[in-house]
Amino acid sequence: MSILVINCGSSSLKYQLIDMSKERTKVKGSIDRIGSKEALLTCDVGTRTVREPVEAKDHHQAMKLALNSLTDSEFGVLDNLKQVKAVGHRVVHGGEKYSCPTVLTPETIKELEQFNYLAPLHNPKNIMGIRACKAILEDTPQVAVFDTAFHQTIPTHAYTYGLPFKYYQKYGIRRYGFHGTSHRYVAEQAAKLMGRPLEELKLITCHLGNGVSISAVQGGVSVDNSMGFTPLEGVPMGTRCGNLDPGIVLFLMEKEGLNVADTMALLNRECGILGISGISNDFREVQEAAAGGDEQAILALKVFTYSVRKYIGAYTAVMNGVDGLVFTGGIGENSPWIRTEICQDMDYLGLILDEEKNSITGQSFEIASKQSKVRVMVIPTNEELMIAREVYKCIGLES
Amino acid sequence: MSILVINCGSSSLKYQLIDMSKERTKVKGSIDRIGSKEALLTCDVGTRTVREPVEAKDHHQAMKLALNSLTDSEFGVLDNLKQVKAVGHRVVHGGEKYSCPTVLTPETIKELEQFNYLAPLHNPKNIMGIRACKAILEDTPQVAVFDTAFHQTIPTHAYTYGLPFKYYQKYGIRRYGFHGTSHRYVAEQAAKLMGRPLEELKLITCHLGNGVSISAVQGGVSVDNSMGFTPLEGVPMGTRCGNLDPGIVLFLMEKEGLNVADTMALLNRECGILGISGISNDFREVQEAAAGGDEQAILALKVFTYSVRKYIGAYTAVMNGVDGLVFTGGIGENSPWIRTEICQDMDYLGLILDEEKNSITGQSFEIASKQSKVRVMVIPTNEELMIAREVYKCIGLES
Repeated sequence: MSILVINCGSSSLKYQLIDMSKERTKVKGSIDRIGSKEALLTCDVGTRTVREPVEAKDHHQAMKLALNSLTDSEFGVLDNLKQVKAVGHRVVHGGEKYSCPTVLTPETIKELEQFNYLAPLHNPKNIMGIRACKAILEDTPQVAVFDTAFHQTIPTHAYTYGLPFKYYQKYGIRRYGFHGTSHRYVAEQAAKLMGRPLEELKLITCHLGNGVSISAVQGGVSVDNSMGFTPLEGVPMGTRCGNLDPGIVLFLMEKEGLNVADTMALLNRECGILGISGISNDFREVQEAAAGGDEQAILALKVFTYSVRKYIGAYTAVMNGVDGLVFTGGIGENSPWIRTEICQDMDYLGLILDEEKNSITGQSFEIASKQSKVRVMVIPTNEELMIAREVYKCIGLES
Repeated sequence: MSILVINCGSSSLKYQLIDMSKERTKVKGSIDRIGSKEALLTCDVGTRTVREPVEAKDHHQAMKLALNSLTDSEFGVLDNLKQVKAVGHRVVHGGEKYSCPTVLTPETIKELEQFNYLAPLHNPKNIMGIRACKAILEDTPQVAVFDTAFHQTIPTHAYTYGLPFKYYQKYGIRRYGFHGTSHRYVAEQAAKLMGRPLEELKLITCHLGNGVSISAVQGGVSVDNSMGFTPLEGVPMGTRCGNLDPGIVLFLMEKEGLNVADTMALLNRECGILGISGISNDFREVQEAAAGGDEQAILALKVFTYSVRKYIGAYTAVMNGVDGLVFTGGIGENSPWIRTEICQDMDYLGLILDEEKNSITGQSFEIASKQSKVRVMVIPTNEELMIAREVYKCIGLES
């Protein structure tokens, strides 16, 4: 029984076909550079990787290519598209309305479009993908799974900003939190790894990737997240600024003569690790430069780990303790050095890293010493599988 | 031996005359509503309070009135102004240059004016007061004491924002931290109360007043502060927003058609506790409404205490533990309820409040239970005395 998971970005369409009987990915592909003349299809099927230039002027065309790849006469894994039992679409923002996966009908799609203003960089593309997929797989049940959904349990006092309340009522300005699917997935995996019920646990999940967000997960529900109204808040990221004194935004606009759009572009694309280091938004490159003694690179990484440490401290206070700390995302999964920097000098929590365990790379594993009172885990995230699971539950395939 | 301490605000001039032999305040006065027709002199001398309408068109006139009050034939405490041995001026922003109290000469005053752009709401008024005082007390040594000075020990990785580094180089955009004089004063007092050398201690000092800032003070030096480039960052305050997703600033400007000045006014004057509660920026009024069941008031206070709790957690992580927690400022000193809310559910640190001790009002006192591993103290701040002490040391009156 196969579920197709779709993740539509501004110029890319990622997809995975997952066999739910074994929770195994059968096809993992993407069409990149949509709209350019160099559009490219990449597709992993078993041990084989297909890479070929394609014509993909828009997301409709890209969607057709993605679906065709599933039934390709040479490397396809399906006889026909009716074997796709359901489709799950990643949608970044569900506003306050959508805290659950939602079956997509013409009505719900229209409703969803009302939240475009909350995530103008993401939601319109997500919905473009949904419309394209609906046009082809008319009769296949399709479900939207929201990045914000897991965080809908964040309590009012944690999602309210220090603003006139009318702006919450008028525009929905509040903390939403992002990467929800990832935080939920690794929290569930962590409970398994710890051999304890999720409902009993206080976890801090650190999704450290291109985007970075940290969550306090208490009893299996999100109680806080470092990203806020938009995915710009929190820890400084590859190119996003993270937390700023609001006065800085205004100061920069005035002194540099920037308008809102300029400033948005600056804060999203030229800041964070790239901005401080002046080298790259790629942590591997910045780490390399730091190892070579580059002071700006060293500073950028230190600003990053310091910010993560503050969130770990804050969320431990929020939950009155922490049982487990989880690292996931590209950086969280692959950089022992970053994990060491984050976890150093945490004796006050009884958190002690085992450097030998931490140097391993692999699947889910623990990196705290046996004496550590806080379990520390590295868990590769799998948002696609989580989306597939949600879809599976949502459309009643379970029964 | 008397030192005069001056604190010039936008429409007020506060002053204290302090006898350094006993560190006792001899006169405490203010001229309020400078520039209006209802300017008012208030002056406490011993047990007597003088209140009289005055003519104070500008800070020069106000300064004359303040100085005259010291030698007033009826309630003055000095025979002549030569008995003022030195003057200390509170200056909010000293940029990166001024980490120490600085003797004011025509040259240093000019240099100071270069930092006006960093604190446009405060520094120009501070300097206006300095010029007015220099004009009258020509030969008396005068010293600037900076709110940012104590925080100059904050390490680079804690003061660097996730911005292109050029903005630090070009404009000095970094975390400065504020209320430094208050944080230093209460940290020193806390060490005395704890009977331990300040150099050994990890303290978190919570200055909760009209402005709110929280500091991590390790070994007697500030290692972090919740206020940043401006006094707008950190915990939501009476009317200031505190931390916001930077995306919110831009979103609001666009949707509400606000320019930089409008937005600055909004974030400084209509936000925080006033904005959320819709009632007042005065915590007493909001607490009263909350006690009466007003939901917005309850929410505003909860947002406030939650934010303080997160800082306490973050700074505990930064220092790898905490020995003492200090409450100061109008709210910190006078609201047992707020202190209880902040300190609840902190067992993970072994922090346990003694509710009976917490209900006391008075001078410096401890409010943690005997079993608590973290000492918790209420210490009235005294920025004027701290400024006087700095002046005393700075101009070599000690020897």
